[in-house]
Amino acid sequence: MKKYCFGIDVGGTTVKCGLFDVKGTVLDKWEIKTRTENNGCNILPDVADTISDKIREKNLDRDEIAGIGLGVPGPVNEEGEVPAAVNLHWGYVHLVDQMERLTGLNVKAGNDANVAALGEMWKGGGAGYHNVVLVTLGTGVGGGIINNGQIVTGTHGAGGEIGHIHVTDSLDVNCNCGNCGCLEQVASATGITFLAKRRLEKDDAPSVLRRRNLSAKSVFDAVKEGDAVAVEIAEEFGHYLGTALANVAGITDPDIFVIGGGVSKAGPILLEFIQKYYKQYAFMACKETPFALAELGNDAGIYGAAKLVL
Amino acid sequence: MKKYCFGIDVGGTTVKCGLFDVKGTVLDKWEIKTRTENNGCNILPDVADTISDKIREKNLDRDEIAGIGLGVPGPVNEEGEVPAAVNLHWGYVHLVDQMERLTGLNVKAGNDANVAALGEMWKGGGAGYHNVVLVTLGTGVGGGIINNGQIVTGTHGAGGEIGHIHVTDSLDVNCNCGNCGCLEQVASATGITFLAKRRLEKDDAPSVLRRRNLSAKSVFDAVKEGDAVAVEIAEEFGHYLGTALANVAGITDPDIFVIGGGVSKAGPILLEFIQKYYKQYAFMACKETPFALAELGNDAGIYGAAKLVL
Repeated sequence: MKKYCFGIDVGGTTVKCGLFDVKGTVLDKWEIKTRTENNGCNILPDVADTISDKIREKNLDRDEIAGIGLGVPGPVNEEGEVPAAVNLHWGYVHLVDQMERLTGLNVKAGNDANVAALGEMWKGGGAGYHNVVLVTLGTGVGGGIINNGQIVTGTHGAGGEIGHIHVTDSLDVNCNCGNCGCLEQVASATGITFLAKRRLEKDDAPSVLRRRNLSAKSVFDAVKEGDAVAVEIAEEFGHYLGTALANVAGITDPDIFVIGGGVSKAGPILLEFIQKYYKQYAFMACKETPFALAELGNDAGIYGAAKLVL
Repeated sequence: MKKYCFGIDVGGTTVKCGLFDVKGTVLDKWEIKTRTENNGCNILPDVADTISDKIREKNLDRDEIAGIGLGVPGPVNEEGEVPAAVNLHWGYVHLVDQMERLTGLNVKAGNDANVAALGEMWKGGGAGYHNVVLVTLGTGVGGGIINNGQIVTGTHGAGGEIGHIHVTDSLDVNCNCGNCGCLEQVASATGITFLAKRRLEKDDAPSVLRRRNLSAKSVFDAVKEGDAVAVEIAEEFGHYLGTALANVAGITDPDIFVIGGGVSKAGPILLEFIQKYYKQYAFMACKETPFALAELGNDAGIYGAAKLVL
């Protein structure tokens, strides 16, 4: 009888760890440092050690542990291999094999954004649904697609790369991915700042933003104060993201869209700007698909990782 | 031991029927008329009768029949219900329940475009793959998405509605779906004719198209003859469709794209125009995803329907 599992979210700076019961209650939560030196060769042994320590500390019976779920910042194919993960300084790593050898436990792995989507479906903004799209608006735009309760990984691990949907021909700078006109360039925190800068330079329209540091937060704060220029910027952001998600709806037709990441701290007003354009462009049958804010914050990764092995 | 199954593709004019062995060999193929009068109340009984007749004719043992797969021109939810199917004059129909009662056999059902994608994955242009996107360029643009061998149906049965991806803000006429700027408006047979007309009206550039009936066929015939204006039209078509499929790749990341429908009779040259823009906009990991032409033509539906029950 399995009672416990571990959910591990490997980030570029820290590894977030969670011990869960099989119903999804967090029994313990902690972090260790991510040691990226020497091509990140210590990362998996460090994770194995901290799990081993936790098993001893809590006096867990290994037969009662369903396994270890791992989320990593890179593509993970269906065999549990990672071709490369830049932020961990990894080249090719057979993640699942190596971790199973290190721990003797059942291991499943996935891309961190996809795994976070699974977490939000399980215990967050998408709870109760089984077709969920998570969009994470942070420094970049991440995404994860859950169809029938399963992560859509895709052939190259690029399933849910919503940030790199092409949304505009109007940009003359490249995205980090090398393409030009990606959603990430206009809908991430960085992207919203870019839109704000471009709008303010266009003319001399008065705006409180001219006296403040430009950021996604300052833009949405100004929107809440009724600043007309800030509203224009939010409309442009909403147009890009709403249209992109309307197109996602015509492809996978989810139960719900969940919006997370730092930008989502702007709250429900953010959803209004997205949904306005979503409704305009979504296929008839999908126009009323609900939107929710993510609820698990930085813990989505450990929840989703745990769910991988259950 | 199951040896046989039926694949039935219900269209607005005819019902295509196939008897298959479980390996996917067609043992018999025939058609009956689709009787749409009286809200299409005869359609399912007619299908049940023709199957019953075939079982008798071939002297099949009912215990050896795996079941009946049905493709219909409308959304089909996970429970096998159809909210409405305009071309069949149907309102709500519990397709699977009703067909099981009529035949006493196991029944599965799906949307015709999705089912055709499954057929192309099984025995057509996507054979050997299990993540396949089929795009059908006919009067409209249809689509079907297969992920891990399963149809992506979506919450409202709108999974794979690729024809209604929003691709341009430059149109001032509405799509049949009510939105404006859908892929179908610029990439279907009708859409290519529209692009051709618009291009020819723009200026007086010489083109063989000015002496011919405009159609998707005449445009691609002229492309093959090296007509510069026709090439421009094909480029515009390729830009819209290639970009839309690049966005599909960033969402579900298939093994292969399969292009079917009447327009695909233009042959491999069609793929060149699509792939040129696909490669420009697809996410890095997906740039080399192959494209193929559909191979089953009008039989994709009966193949895919048969596969539903296997």
